[in-house]
Amino acid sequence: MTDLERVEAQLAFLLEADRLKQIERQSSIVGASRRENTAEHSWHLALFALVLAEHADSSVDLPKVLAMLVLHDLVEIDAGDTFAYDETGYESKSAREREAADRLFGMLPGDQGKRLRSLWEEFEAGQTADARFANALDRLQSVLLNTENAGESWRRHGISQDRVIARNSAIGSGSELLWSAALARIRALYEGADPPA
Amino acid sequence: MTDLERVEAQLAFLLEADRLKQIERQSSIVGASRRENTAEHSWHLALFALVLAEHADSSVDLPKVLAMLVLHDLVEIDAGDTFAYDETGYESKSAREREAADRLFGMLPGDQGKRLRSLWEEFEAGQTADARFANALDRLQSVLLNTENAGESWRRHGISQDRVIARNSAIGSGSELLWSAALARIRALYEGADPPA
Repeated sequence: MTDLERVEAQLAFLLEADRLKQIERQSSIVGASRRENTAEHSWHLALFALVLAEHADSSVDLPKVLAMLVLHDLVEIDAGDTFAYDETGYESKSAREREAADRLFGMLPGDQGKRLRSLWEEFEAGQTADARFANALDRLQSVLLNTENAGESWRRHGISQDRVIARNSAIGSGSELLWSAALARIRALYEGADPPA
Repeated sequence: MTDLERVEAQLAFLLEADRLKQIERQSSIVGASRRENTAEHSWHLALFALVLAEHADSSVDLPKVLAMLVLHDLVEIDAGDTFAYDETGYESKSAREREAADRLFGMLPGDQGKRLRSLWEEFEAGQTADARFANALDRLQSVLLNTENAGESWRRHGISQDRVIARNSAIGSGSELLWSAALARIRALYEGADPPA
């Protein structure tokens, strides 16, 4: 593969990735004027990582966390967004997303596609400190948008406080401090307590 | 400042940053069904950096380039997007953006606000190898979206091929190979030649 062939394969991948801007999530942007799309969600998470990395309970490799977050939802181009509380959707999620990963990372030069896919696999497995922290940020961002928007997407789907807490307590596997800040917001929303200052 | 006060300042900043999702750019997403917003544009650029860093002519610090690209347009929350070919808008751009940087980075804990702002300043100055490459990707992405969309935003504003080339030749200061790929697309669009395979 010449350098030029390599660039052309990479540009084709980057243009295909543009479609992530059209994948709609359940959460709304702050103000709830419209749903958030997965591309802007991924940018928001990269900013979360830059700002909040100091609160990770295990030391993390920030560049790797950033790369994971930029890549983590690319598969939604083919597989769509699966709502965090959709148990039926979750049964088929993994198979749908692996097929999407085959196609999308397969557009890249072999060595690079393999390397970027392995970052996505690490995020999905959620076992390493980097992946646990990246996953914590993914949940934290969704809690923040929802509590800021008066619980809008949780209300729409009738999700109870218990389910919200069960789903998001994994934030604590990345950072106890971030989980306590998130939990205070969830409680304030459901129990009408004062939100944190 | 306690850890909790620090987290609360950071979360307030991250929620304010959400507004970048509502800043509309001149370029459209692929397919031209709507304009691109600055948050999803910033995500796209981070992905460009992950995939294209190997083509930088001077060796670059990829994590720093990634951080710059995540942060580079935050100031548009207050200052708005200035169209690359708007010469009047460019006269006041710098003052408007510096005020925005004061306010936005000023929301963060002092040490962190200073550190992230200096990355933005470095990007804006465009003097270091990292900043030159990050700026090259910013222009390349816009060339790709425009050529993919039959020159849509350039046509709307009546921008000639010469101006497009003059504006974007700075891609070559980051990567000669990426500039040659971009130039081939610009020529194919304006001169009706065959686009690259």
